[in-house]
Amino acid sequence: MMVAVCGPNEATPEEAELAEAVGEALARRGCAVICGGRDGVMAAACRGAKRAGGVTIGVLPGYDRRAANPWVDYAICTGMGEARNAIIVASADVVIAVGGGLGTLSEIALALKLGKRVVSLGSWALEDQRLARQEAQQLYRQAVTVDQAIELALAGVSRASPT
Amino acid sequence: MMVAVCGPNEATPEEAELAEAVGEALARRGCAVICGGRDGVMAAACRGAKRAGGVTIGVLPGYDRRAANPWVDYAICTGMGEARNAIIVASADVVIAVGGGLGTLSEIALALKLGKRVVSLGSWALEDQRLARQEAQQLYRQAVTVDQAIELALAGVSRASPT
Amino acid sequence: MMVAVCGPNEATPEEAELAEAVGEALARRGCAVICGGRDGVMAAACRGAKRAGGVTIGVLPGYDRRAANPWVDYAICTGMGEARNAIIVASADVVIAVGGGLGTLSEIALALKLGKRVVSLGSWALEDQRLARQEAQQLYRQAVTVDQAIELALAGVSRASPT
Amino acid sequence: MMVAVCGPNEATPEEAELAEAVGEALARRGCAVICGGRDGVMAAACRGAKRAGGVTIGVLPGYDRRAANPWVDYAICTGMGEARNAIIVASADVVIAVGGGLGTLSEIALALKLGKRVVSLGSWALEDQRLARQEAQQLYRQAVTVDQAIELALAGVSRASPT
Repeated sequence: MMVAVCGPNEATPEEAELAEAVGEALARRGCAVICGGRDGVMAAACRGAKRAGGVTIGVLPGYDRRAANPWVDYAICTGMGEARNAIIVASADVVIAVGGGLGTLSEIALALKLGKRVVSLGSWALEDQRLARQEAQQLYRQAVTVDQAIELALAGVSRASPT
Repeated sequence: MMVAVCGPNEATPEEAELAEAVGEALARRGCAVICGGRDGVMAAACRGAKRAGGVTIGVLPGYDRRAANPWVDYAICTGMGEARNAIIVASADVVIAVGGGLGTLSEIALALKLGKRVVSLGSWALEDQRLARQEAQQLYRQAVTVDQAIELALAGVSRASPT
Repeated sequence: MMVAVCGPNEATPEEAELAEAVGEALARRGCAVICGGRDGVMAAACRGAKRAGGVTIGVLPGYDRRAANPWVDYAICTGMGEARNAIIVASADVVIAVGGGLGTLSEIALALKLGKRVVSLGSWALEDQRLARQEAQQLYRQAVTVDQAIELALAGVSRASPT
Repeated sequence: MMVAVCGPNEATPEEAELAEAVGEALARRGCAVICGGRDGVMAAACRGAKRAGGVTIGVLPGYDRRAANPWVDYAICTGMGEARNAIIVASADVVIAVGGGLGTLSEIALALKLGKRVVSLGSWALEDQRLARQEAQQLYRQAVTVDQAIELALAGVSRASPT
C-alpha cells in the first residue's frame, strides 16, 4: 500500500514534527510513503519512514535527482514542475496532507477529483457544501492527532492492495 | 493577452450563463480564451467568445480532438488527464473561475502557486489566513458580477503582453 | 487543420530556409502551424506562416511565455520540459520534421506511435524493417522538396478536420 | 543506482529472454529497475529483477495501478499516456533498450537528449552522423550479449549515485 504525504516545502517545526510521526507510523504499518521528494513536510515524512525501516519515493519537479531530500529511496525525476503533483496523488491509495500551501491544495483537489480519500492534519478547510456537491464530502476528513490521521487514512482502504 | 476560464464540465444554467458572458466580454476586449476545452463552463465561455469574434484554445485531457466543444478554435491534445490543468493556468495571464468543482479548485491552487491572479465568480472560498501565509491573498479575488470579474481580471495586467 | 513542424532549436541556414518555406506553404493552405515555440526550425516555420497570414501555436517547455519566438501567436506554457514533445505531435493532424536532433527524433517516434503521418524533410532515416514491424512504414515518408513535403503531408488527411 | 529497461509491450520470446536476463543481472549488481510497468520486455525485466531479489518501479501510462505487471514493486500512476516515457528515462542513470518499437525509440531519443547513456540490445540502429552532430555518438552503444549490455551500461556510471 502506498500513502502520499503532502505538505509545504518550508514547514514550521510543528508541521515537521507531525509529518515525521506520520511517516514513521506509516512505515510501521508496512505502507510505502510517496511525496514530492523535497524539503519541509516531505523530508520530515521520509525521515520518519526511514527511521522505521520503510520505503520512500520522491516524485521530483525537476530532472535532477540531487534535489531529493536524503531520505528518499527512489527518486522519480519528472521535469514537469507543478504538474507532477497529479502524479503523486494518482499513485497513492490515500493522501495525508500535513499543513500545506497552494501546492498542497492542488494535490488535495486532484486526489479528491480522482476519488481518493484525503486526510487533513492541519491542512486546508474546504467548503462542506461544495464538497457535498462533488460527492467528495466523505472523502475529505479532518484529523487532529497523528494517530487519528493514520486511522482515518487506512480505515477502509484494503491492506491487501499491491503497492 | 490570454485569459483562462475554468469551471465544471457539468454546469448549472446560471454558471453557463455567467461563463458565456465572461467569454464574450473577454473577446470584446481582445483577449484569447484558454480553457479545458470540454463542456459546461468551458463550452459556454468558448461560445461567448466566438459570438464576439474571439479566439478560443482548448487544452484537452485526452488525445482525441473530437472531445473538444464546437467553439474551440485550437485544440491542444495533451493525453495527460487531470495533469493538463497545470498547463491551462500556466499559459494564462490571469484566471477566471466560474463555479467549479475539484478540477477547478486544483486550477485555482496551481494558478496562485504560479503567482497568477485568479478571480472567482461564484467559485471556491479559500481561507484568508492561509492565503495570507502564502502571500497570495491579493492574488485571489471574489467578484459578484461579470463586469466586476472582467475588471478585476484585467486590472493591473499589462494589455501589451503578447499572447 | 493543424500541422506540427518539428526541428532543432539551432538550425543551419538551409534548414531554416526549408522550415520557413514549409510554414508559408502551410499557412497558404489554411493550416495552423504548431511547434515547440522556440528558435531555429520552429522560429523559421512560424515566421513563414505569419508572412502568409497564418496562425501559429508554440508549445513551450517552460513556464515563461517570453521564451517563445516572436512569430508565435499563442504560447502554451507547459513547464514540462522534453515531455512537452508528446503534446505537440498529439495535437497535430500530421507532422513535418525539418532536419532534426534528438528532440525531433522523439517527436517522430511519438507521432508514429500515435498513428500520425510524419514527413521527413532532411530528418532522420529510420530502419524500414523495424517500421514495417510497427505497421508504421506507410506513416513515415521522405520528402526532398518543400512542395513534396506539403503534398505528402496533406494527401489523405481530411481537410475538413477541425483544428 | 537506477537503470531503465525499455522495450515493447509485445515482446518476442527472444526479447523476453534477454530482458529477463538483463533484469536479473541488474538486480544482482544492486541496481533498481525502472520501466514502463506493462507487459512484454517490461514484465520480463521486472520478473528477472525480482528473481534476484531486486527492486522494480513501473511508471504506468494510466491511472490504474492494476495495469502494472505482477513483478512491479512500486507503481507510479501518471495518467499521462506516452508522455510518461520522458519520466522513465529522466529518472534513470542509464537506459538499456531491448528490442523495441516506436515507444522505445522515443525513450532512446529522450534519454540521449538528456545526456544519458543508452545501450541497445537488439534495438534501433541510429544514423552515426546525426548522432555525432548531437555529440551523442558516445552515449548510444550497441551490445550483442546481456553481459556486454550490463558492462556498457554500468561502466563509467558512478555506483555511488543514490537511487
